[in-house]
Amino acid sequence: MKTVGIVGGSGYTGVELLRLLLPREDVQVGFVSSRANAGTRLDTVFPSLRGATDLTFSEPDVALMGGCDLIFFATPNGTAMLQAPSLLDAGVKVVDLSADYRLQDVATWEHWYGLTHTSPEWVPRAIYGLPEINRKAIAAASLVANPGCYPTTVQLGFLPLLEAGLVDTDRLIADAKSGISGAGRGASVATLLAEASDSFKAYATAGHRHLPEIEQGLNAMAEQPVALTFTPHLLPIIRGIHATLYGTLLSDISLEDLQALYQQRYQDEVFVDVMPLGSQPETRSVKGSNMCRLAVHKPQNRDTVVILAIEDNLVKGAAGQAVQNMNLMLGFDEKAGLEQLALSP
Amino acid sequence: MKTVGIVGGSGYTGVELLRLLLPREDVQVGFVSSRANAGTRLDTVFPSLRGATDLTFSEPDVALMGGCDLIFFATPNGTAMLQAPSLLDAGVKVVDLSADYRLQDVATWEHWYGLTHTSPEWVPRAIYGLPEINRKAIAAASLVANPGCYPTTVQLGFLPLLEAGLVDTDRLIADAKSGISGAGRGASVATLLAEASDSFKAYATAGHRHLPEIEQGLNAMAEQPVALTFTPHLLPIIRGIHATLYGTLLSDISLEDLQALYQQRYQDEVFVDVMPLGSQPETRSVKGSNMCRLAVHKPQNRDTVVILAIEDNLVKGAAGQAVQNMNLMLGFDEKAGLEQLALSP
Amino acid sequence: MKTVGIVGGSGYTGVELLRLLLPREDVQVGFVSSRANAGTRLDTVFPSLRGATDLTFSEPDVALMGGCDLIFFATPNGTAMLQAPSLLDAGVKVVDLSADYRLQDVATWEHWYGLTHTSPEWVPRAIYGLPEINRKAIAAASLVANPGCYPTTVQLGFLPLLEAGLVDTDRLIADAKSGISGAGRGASVATLLAEASDSFKAYATAGHRHLPEIEQGLNAMAEQPVALTFTPHLLPIIRGIHATLYGTLLSDISLEDLQALYQQRYQDEVFVDVMPLGSQPETRSVKGSNMCRLAVHKPQNRDTVVILAIEDNLVKGAAGQAVQNMNLMLGFDEKAGLEQLALSP
Amino acid sequence: MKTVGIVGGSGYTGVELLRLLLPREDVQVGFVSSRANAGTRLDTVFPSLRGATDLTFSEPDVALMGGCDLIFFATPNGTAMLQAPSLLDAGVKVVDLSADYRLQDVATWEHWYGLTHTSPEWVPRAIYGLPEINRKAIAAASLVANPGCYPTTVQLGFLPLLEAGLVDTDRLIADAKSGISGAGRGASVATLLAEASDSFKAYATAGHRHLPEIEQGLNAMAEQPVALTFTPHLLPIIRGIHATLYGTLLSDISLEDLQALYQQRYQDEVFVDVMPLGSQPETRSVKGSNMCRLAVHKPQNRDTVVILAIEDNLVKGAAGQAVQNMNLMLGFDEKAGLEQLALSP
Repeated sequence: MKTVGIVGGSGYTGVELLRLLLPREDVQVGFVSSRANAGTRLDTVFPSLRGATDLTFSEPDVALMGGCDLIFFATPNGTAMLQAPSLLDAGVKVVDLSADYRLQDVATWEHWYGLTHTSPEWVPRAIYGLPEINRKAIAAASLVANPGCYPTTVQLGFLPLLEAGLVDTDRLIADAKSGISGAGRGASVATLLAEASDSFKAYATAGHRHLPEIEQGLNAMAEQPVALTFTPHLLPIIRGIHATLYGTLLSDISLEDLQALYQQRYQDEVFVDVMPLGSQPETRSVKGSNMCRLAVHKPQNRDTVVILAIEDNLVKGAAGQAVQNMNLMLGFDEKAGLEQLALSP
Repeated sequence: MKTVGIVGGSGYTGVELLRLLLPREDVQVGFVSSRANAGTRLDTVFPSLRGATDLTFSEPDVALMGGCDLIFFATPNGTAMLQAPSLLDAGVKVVDLSADYRLQDVATWEHWYGLTHTSPEWVPRAIYGLPEINRKAIAAASLVANPGCYPTTVQLGFLPLLEAGLVDTDRLIADAKSGISGAGRGASVATLLAEASDSFKAYATAGHRHLPEIEQGLNAMAEQPVALTFTPHLLPIIRGIHATLYGTLLSDISLEDLQALYQQRYQDEVFVDVMPLGSQPETRSVKGSNMCRLAVHKPQNRDTVVILAIEDNLVKGAAGQAVQNMNLMLGFDEKAGLEQLALSP
Repeated sequence: MKTVGIVGGSGYTGVELLRLLLPREDVQVGFVSSRANAGTRLDTVFPSLRGATDLTFSEPDVALMGGCDLIFFATPNGTAMLQAPSLLDAGVKVVDLSADYRLQDVATWEHWYGLTHTSPEWVPRAIYGLPEINRKAIAAASLVANPGCYPTTVQLGFLPLLEAGLVDTDRLIADAKSGISGAGRGASVATLLAEASDSFKAYATAGHRHLPEIEQGLNAMAEQPVALTFTPHLLPIIRGIHATLYGTLLSDISLEDLQALYQQRYQDEVFVDVMPLGSQPETRSVKGSNMCRLAVHKPQNRDTVVILAIEDNLVKGAAGQAVQNMNLMLGFDEKAGLEQLALSP
Repeated sequence: MKTVGIVGGSGYTGVELLRLLLPREDVQVGFVSSRANAGTRLDTVFPSLRGATDLTFSEPDVALMGGCDLIFFATPNGTAMLQAPSLLDAGVKVVDLSADYRLQDVATWEHWYGLTHTSPEWVPRAIYGLPEINRKAIAAASLVANPGCYPTTVQLGFLPLLEAGLVDTDRLIADAKSGISGAGRGASVATLLAEASDSFKAYATAGHRHLPEIEQGLNAMAEQPVALTFTPHLLPIIRGIHATLYGTLLSDISLEDLQALYQQRYQDEVFVDVMPLGSQPETRSVKGSNMCRLAVHKPQNRDTVVILAIEDNLVKGAAGQAVQNMNLMLGFDEKAGLEQLALSP
């Protein structure tokens, strides 16, 4: 039995961690902190948890934290970089669901996030938590930077193409669409049901914080700098990301060979599903599950390859991947607690 | 390890049974039949099942059925009454999710369903599968008539009031609202997204088939005939039933005493949650879970009691309750496979 | 050509007034005030208005107001009671879409709204703006209290029954469901798409501010005090109210006679549509239109009458009815600018 | 007063034509045919029309048709090509909302639509009804081929870039998302609310019928053959198309110059709105309106230009554009009956 804690547990990634962790018998949730809700029962804020826990939100408390084997930061950007180092020094492992340790270039991070990094010394020691790329390093890591929701989908979608050097890296396009839970649980006019439902729009067209994170990953896969046009859009759904990825093929390769490449690359991955030729994955097919599904297309047999990639932004795009990383870090089966099937319909 | 089968597995209750059963290690799904999809893999029709099963839909097959410990009928009304008797005679247990064995009065059933019952001899031997009322009988039963979605919510909501004889049984009202999955997976104009979303309406105001089923149950609780006005409405959501129940109190009883009555009646029920005073349950708090949540109100302290009752129509209102019944019938823990928390948000 | 102004134009009733007024050639919008948005173009806040206006939100300005024939208050409760009197004294007509002048009993108003009324002398002079009841008085009025959204539907639904003395006034029930735009355009967690969509719940079960307003109206129709149980619910749709009304019939009257009663009462009303026997109105059939549709039912031919009543809460329930009142007050055709058909689908 | 008729009026484009035409005083709807609904009142099928018409759906009737000035075909593909020629010969003008006369190359049309064209002689005489390109020819036309929904958005979006020769025509991308009303009013499982809501997916990735129509238009603008990758997606909303268009710039042109180009090209177009720099149009800003809104972006100031283009697929994408064409053909003001503002929220 391992004990974990959650710092910042009153947002959507917090309650999703609880949904995945509370039913487990091999993991115990020691504390869940939330400054805004300290002293309130978890199930008062989240009635879906009624019957599953008697815990109360606490203030962040060093003693509580120190007693844990691993702590999840489900906090806004800028919190983990302050609190994680002392925990790490005390031997507590950390999975940070925020962006604090995702970018290896601190100056780039400071530019995009508008903050001064307070623990840059931990940045090079943080492992980027995409198990399909970094499985072994994650298992050995003390500090894992859990990937962003868009970056998970886009990187898994482009990975085989870039590793194989098949597309023009100067002109990649990711037309991405996210469910609104990605915007978080804060009160705002733009994400009201009356504003966002029965509608659709692009946002952050001029530049989204996930762009440098994605490009960092794609650069590594391609072993050269790539240029990505990344256009996020807001879907009037709760959960789900759909990335439509476009690349210009450098040589004449058939759709069947592209399909084979994807199947081979992901044949041992339990959470990446390469769908049969001709498929179009629906986001609902992963609602509540940790799966990422991919489909490969080559319209009109021209020189543009189109990859369709989906995930549940709160599971494989956040809390589910964090639990997957925890499983690796604490020696559990990588799939433990993550085998629930998607809700259908 | 027990083996079960599903007859009529290509509808919403079929895929929901699969979501609940496939991950279990103590139950094996032996076959899933579907005339329309025979020969097609389950995960072709339901991509959410990809990775969880290699099964193919079969024709209904007596040999396959005979090898099962229990068979679920997730068929349209009128099928189980034809096929169940021979299975029961062969010692196979049956949980019928259709309405074939729900009404003890065969003439009433034939009136509302417009069919001649072909196995009326099994009607008196069928146990109505509401564990909160019939737990022991279910555990001993060969044939369980799984309750309808509305009837589950409405009966659990009225039960304590009627057992205690607190309300005027001549004038009960159930204003019920159901998610659209209750209408099934058949193609129809009225349930298209373009027709039903961003809208709301009542339907079947003149008489819904669940009325006699509910009244049969309420009569038994009240030990006298009741008269219920039952108004179903169509919600533009996928899953969830919300019943708002009204009763005229026969004597002066406080809200606190009503609350205590409900808490006491359901204190040992793991799938009925009496919420704290002043609560208003949201259907999403049970999305994907087998829980029914209730809240008790007495507006303006007048003589009308208002009960708010919710469930997921596909879980506690159908497949989840069917699994709960199966657990009782096959000797499993009643909660086995049903402890998943609701998806939130 | 008449000139009107809108105080508090940055909410949903404000933009809906603009949608209805800007295309008119007989009415000119002189100013739209909004403290929060003063100095910003209207079409920056509401891009749907692009091309229809070059106006900029202003501070509330006495000079601008004085130049208008009529001013709409689309403000939160407690503002019109401060600003309307001086305008009225200066001869400007006022339609108040807030609740400030709706309740004739000032003490009751102060109890439910938690404010001290600052212009109680205007309360008895305010005309309740339900044209189907007060048409002549509205045409002659200086100050019209525009009805609440729920009160419009519930009162129009019960009106014929109460005028005819057909139902038990001690036990009326209004089970009402509203689209989320009724909650306004303020940022809040509870009305986020991620919280409120794909879900349904009751709210304000213990007492909603529209209860005394509705009871005031029903008392007048019945010419005796009534007791109403009013249960509002939140629909995951943008626009639309559906009220399901229940009354106990005092005598044996046929469904056909009830239908005839409703058709007769509303035969001259252009914005009240009594649907054919057996109908179930959908809220989408009035999306964007000023129509209220009613259907009469008597389930199982028992002694409970069920009225289904729908409206668009922002049109007949707010801005449309305000324009209807303006038409009467300024001598326009009552239907002017209100003949747009509902958006379908 | 002109008289028009609608053939095939029981689908979404049919009822949308009625919404736009019935309130007009300069146009009279002479008949609306529907084989499936012949003999039924229009407002029985579409309750939103109650109070606005007493018409009954008729069988297609040559005499009725012959008495009209103009007839709209809102029929499935393959009907207009049979019926239009005799009407045209009799001097009745025709606006065909189906695809029958959109492709100038009959062989291409037959390939994509799987039919043999029965009136190929009318193909070269049909004018493609995009007024922003063909205004004069439309005004003089007898037969107008009303553009498809996607083609309208994509062509208006690319037009200035292609006319100016600014982008690589070998590698255009249109990532397009459509509301579900685009799939029509036929019963189907895939477009049920329970299947399509709270989800998102691509479809027709291998080839959509609108691809040749779009490429035909883009070829003409570019004055050379273009290659477009067109990826349609299904949005869980009722109305609205959002096209995200990508082009590779051939030379170094600033965002400001691109913006100026778009503003200049569309400065006289009342139904094309070039939004301010930095904008991201929402589909709801045109819900129910005939407007197409565009925004120009150049992310990271790299060599990829991104155009965001929206419309209401049933208005500017179908019935609204058809009315705009009718206005031109019958000598009305082009804007007549099309100045309604979008529903907001």
